Amino acid sequence: MKELEERINKDGRVIGKDVLKVDSFLNHQIDPVLMEKMGEEFYKHFKDAGVTKILTVESSGIAPAVMTGLQFNVPVVFARKHKSVTLQDDLFTSEVYSFTKKTSNHISISKKYLSSDDNVLIIDDFLANGQAVNGLNDIIKAADASLAGIGIVIEKSFQKGRQLIDKAGIPVYSLARIKAFENGQVVFEPENE
Amino acid sequence: MKELEERINKDGRVIGKDVLKVDSFLNHQIDPVLMEKMGEEFYKHFKDAGVTKILTVESSGIAPAVMTGLQFNVPVVFARKHKSVTLQDDLFTSEVYSFTKKTSNHISISKKYLSSDDNVLIIDDFLANGQAVNGLNDIIKAADASLAGIGIVIEKSFQKGRQLIDKAGIPVYSLARIKAFENGQVVFEPENE
Repeated sequence: MKELEERINKDGRVIGKDVLKVDSFLNHQIDPVLMEKMGEEFYKHFKDAGVTKILTVESSGIAPAVMTGLQFNVPVVFARKHKSVTLQDDLFTSEVYSFTKKTSNHISISKKYLSSDDNVLIIDDFLANGQAVNGLNDIIKAADASLAGIGIVIEKSFQKGRQLIDKAGIPVYSLARIKAFENGQVVFEPENE
Repeated sequence: MKELEERINKDGRVIGKDVLKVDSFLNHQIDPVLMEKMGEEFYKHFKDAGVTKILTVESSGIAPAVMTGLQFNVPVVFARKHKSVTLQDDLFTSEVYSFTKKTSNHISISKKYLSSDDNVLIIDDFLANGQAVNGLNDIIKAADASLAGIGIVIEKSFQKGRQLIDKAGIPVYSLARIKAFENGQVVFEPENE
């Protein structure tokens, strides 16, 4: 998505070897017009996949997920994060390790909002090592729901998440794919490759 | 907002004397089409207020705030919640007490995304005792920004938040105003009163 790549070039900040901060339009301040275009883009890609529900994780996934849900006219569910979790009968739960923060979180979804009738599109802000996507996929499996595909705003292709998803044969579409950070600059994968 | 009141009657669950659960369309599962209509409604009400920025708190405020920002074509900033906070020079911070959870949270916003040039519309999912709104207003004052008004999805008018805001002379618009819970049923304030 050309406009997103341009926005990353303009407003993203590369920190160290593998962190990109996009606090000015995605993770803290949000550009709602850009979010709407992302929703349209995800819809264009997955419109024939029979999506019945959008799944994401709080908080940064919510804006792109809701805009995508609006296009599909389906409900959006966001998993809640907890430091620890007391197992509850009414929740699907999974553990997610963050390599950036070096901590584990639990994520959970109420059993009321995911069932075997659902064909789920996962939407998330970043794909790095694939931990969040894995956690959401565990929950989808526990609910006996099916996974229609994964839509990612920004993929860091040099980390292992993308490879794991491709290996599992899951359809994935990332709006911006970052090949590398070089001298504090973002290098994108060529589009439509 | 008639459609919202009907949805609360249909899908809301009254718990005890003062809690309303709307997990099925607002706080966990989100109805994006309803969110879009809320954004339009807030825009209609505040369109002449000179709003330059929308402010909310993660996570449940994000969806209505982003849809409102889309109508106004202005950025949305969501305050992050922390259990505790180490004071940082680059953050505006405030403390928010939750009567429901009986815990204090700190909320913070990067100083980069709020300035004296901003005229802020606060959007939040619930207004009860007004703690979250107060915390956001503290941050707006610390940034020397101005407050254009407050948009609330669901107001529990029998708690003290609304009264405090009215007393402070701040323009507030709530899409659904709950007068009382009676026998597990929601009683709304008359519209356009």
